[in-house]
Amino acid sequence: MIRVGIMGYGNLGRGVECALSKTKDMELVGIFSRRDPASITPHDANTPVYTMEAAIEMKDRIDVMILCGGSAKDLPEQTKEFAKYFNVVDSFDTHAKIPEHFANVDNSAKANNKIAVISAGWDPGMFSLNRLYASAILTSGNSYTFWGKGVSQGHSDAVRRIEGVKNAKQYTIPVEKALEAVRSGANPKLTTREKHTREVFVVAQDGADQEEIKRQIVTMPNYFDEYDTTVHFIDEETFLKEHSGIPHGGFVIHSGTTGWEDEHKHVIEYRLQLDSNPEFTSSVLVAYARAAYRMNQEGMSGAKTVFDIAPSYLHPLSSEELRKQML
Amino acid sequence: MIRVGIMGYGNLGRGVECALSKTKDMELVGIFSRRDPASITPHDANTPVYTMEAAIEMKDRIDVMILCGGSAKDLPEQTKEFAKYFNVVDSFDTHAKIPEHFANVDNSAKANNKIAVISAGWDPGMFSLNRLYASAILTSGNSYTFWGKGVSQGHSDAVRRIEGVKNAKQYTIPVEKALEAVRSGANPKLTTREKHTREVFVVAQDGADQEEIKRQIVTMPNYFDEYDTTVHFIDEETFLKEHSGIPHGGFVIHSGTTGWEDEHKHVIEYRLQLDSNPEFTSSVLVAYARAAYRMNQEGMSGAKTVFDIAPSYLHPLSSEELRKQML
Ligand SMILES: NC(=O)c1ccc[n+]([C@@H]2O[C@H](COP(=O)([O-])OP(=O)(O)OC[C@H]3O[C@@H](n4cnc5c(N)ncnc54)[C@H](OP(=O)(O)O)[C@@H]3O)[C@@H](O)[C@H]2O)c1
Ligand SMILES: NC(=O)c1ccc[n+]([C@@H]2O[C@H](COP(=O)([O-])OP(=O)(O)OC[C@H]3O[C@@H](n4cnc5c(N)ncnc54)[C@H](OP(=O)(O)O)[C@@H]3O)[C@@H](O)[C@H]2O)c1
Repeated sequence: MIRVGIMGYGNLGRGVECALSKTKDMELVGIFSRRDPASITPHDANTPVYTMEAAIEMKDRIDVMILCGGSAKDLPEQTKEFAKYFNVVDSFDTHAKIPEHFANVDNSAKANNKIAVISAGWDPGMFSLNRLYASAILTSGNSYTFWGKGVSQGHSDAVRRIEGVKNAKQYTIPVEKALEAVRSGANPKLTTREKHTREVFVVAQDGADQEEIKRQIVTMPNYFDEYDTTVHFIDEETFLKEHSGIPHGGFVIHSGTTGWEDEHKHVIEYRLQLDSNPEFTSSVLVAYARAAYRMNQEGMSGAKTVFDIAPSYLHPLSSEELRKQML
Repeated sequence: MIRVGIMGYGNLGRGVECALSKTKDMELVGIFSRRDPASITPHDANTPVYTMEAAIEMKDRIDVMILCGGSAKDLPEQTKEFAKYFNVVDSFDTHAKIPEHFANVDNSAKANNKIAVISAGWDPGMFSLNRLYASAILTSGNSYTFWGKGVSQGHSDAVRRIEGVKNAKQYTIPVEKALEAVRSGANPKLTTREKHTREVFVVAQDGADQEEIKRQIVTMPNYFDEYDTTVHFIDEETFLKEHSGIPHGGFVIHSGTTGWEDEHKHVIEYRLQLDSNPEFTSSVLVAYARAAYRMNQEGMSGAKTVFDIAPSYLHPLSSEELRKQML
């Protein structure tokens, strides 16, 4: 059994707890949090909850620590710190800061002979893998990434900060016409506005000025001004009934050509439709935790991304079984 | 520059020649064939053509030999033989015999410190990878593979052997309703007939009995009897104009659930639309040739499949650049 710890108990932390319960080769040792352990109720009441500080003393009882903190503030500190004591996996998704994060984590993981998988999930993660595979095969081609239909947490938060807004949810939606153009192999140049639209569902406070809320949303710099945005005002009951989930997904589509005259077109399309963004992401983290453990058992160390990890490390079946059943 | 040889000059051999011409880090040393070299005309008249026997003497001038022979008779002999002298890549696609082929090739590659990648292409190959990744992530789920719309060489050959048939092409087509059921996450049990239909275009000889040809096609055991098959008789001109290509493709769709009550559905879909089956397959072989060379440079040896190869080995960009541009 691979002994696993969960660091941070938010959406991903809860998702990892559930995903681990469905594996046969991994067991949950405990949940770790910066908050008072007594304030946290794991799904299984028998799962121990510890303070973050208690983790280090338990380093010999945990094979992999899955880091479920936020990318903005938690992971830049936590991953490099805990890679000193554990094999770790995180879902760091601030794309622009990945090189810096990788370098920091690589130093502490290498110095302590641990494996540290960073930026696992779906984007970065499975989408990145598909960008890489497709562009390695069809070198004369272009990759397009579309997100949605799904909930953008950051955009929903931004709307909630507007005066008069009680609750809000923002969906990012790929434009069907743009998808079709890409799939046709036309290699279109697409502006931000042409790729995605945004749809916002708002519960307004009693007596709030809806026109003013709408104006503030659609003109909000960086978040909405470059998009075609639709705003719907709904009542709280409808909001809770229809907009409580955290679905997401999207497309990576790569089109390219082969042949001496580039006469043959090829389209590679990868699509995710996820009822729960955090639960899917957690499932990816758990598979990469298995990989981290196995690679470390083979003597490897340092920071790794999904690009550096052979697929067979992720799967509970042996290489022989995989060749027989899936190749 | 990675120095590459092509063994066998059929559809894949020609595709590899073209794909290599589009790389910046690989060069074609020569084409090898069992046929008289004088009878073979490479696309670039400057490319030398040698006999198969001449290859072994050139072992220090070639880093990777791409084996483009047929799976039925050529590769079972050629891959294990040439893995003694070269890093090799093949597209062996007789699924049931992969374990045996792997074992044979592994022996000779390991004994000679070479890397031998077997069964690269799209199925086996990219489709296998997608089956593996998806089932490692969504462990409580099912993978479905659909082929087409595309040309099945074996089925076209079988029709051509019928008396009175001058030429024929067979297309395998996934059933839209089955695709939809799988995408919905319904986990349907599908019979052979429910998954694919077959469409055949036949040029009959003058005076041939079309009803009899049709009867022989749709009742042909193993090939057609378990499918709904449509047969079209067309003239030679139309055949050459509309059915000269070798398109193929298909879908790997995996649906699974997460959550304590399996309340969240997720669908992972990978789709290929290929104007040219052999040229796409060749592009995959070239990317894995790069991987074979790099892995061997790092001291690795033995038989490998797409499951055993970290994605970054496939891409001409460095790991740093990949993290920056694609993660
Ligand atoms: N790569 C990908 O595809 C992908 C996909 C989705 C998300 N992500 C990344 O995953 C990160 C985490 O996502 P998430 O949805 O799990 O975030 P979250 O629910 O906000 O949790 C983040 C951290 O906040 C703390 N926390 C949670 N609930 C709290 C509460 N009620 N009060 C105070 N603190 C609380 C927890 O740490 P403590 O227990 O220590 O307090 C938790 O680890 C995101 O920042 C995102 O960047 C990546
Ligand atoms: N994994 C995948 O996804 C995938 C996809 C597509 C194909 N494949 C596999 O790839 C294999 C090769 O496909 P292919 O389309 O390249 O087969 P092909 O055109 O029939 O070529 C196979 C071999 O036959 C010989 N040959 C070719 N043209 C000839 C001619 N005019 N006269 C006599 N011999 C000739 C060549 O060897 P010499 O030059 O030595 O004579 C060549 O290497 C297939 O058997 C299939 O199993 C795999």
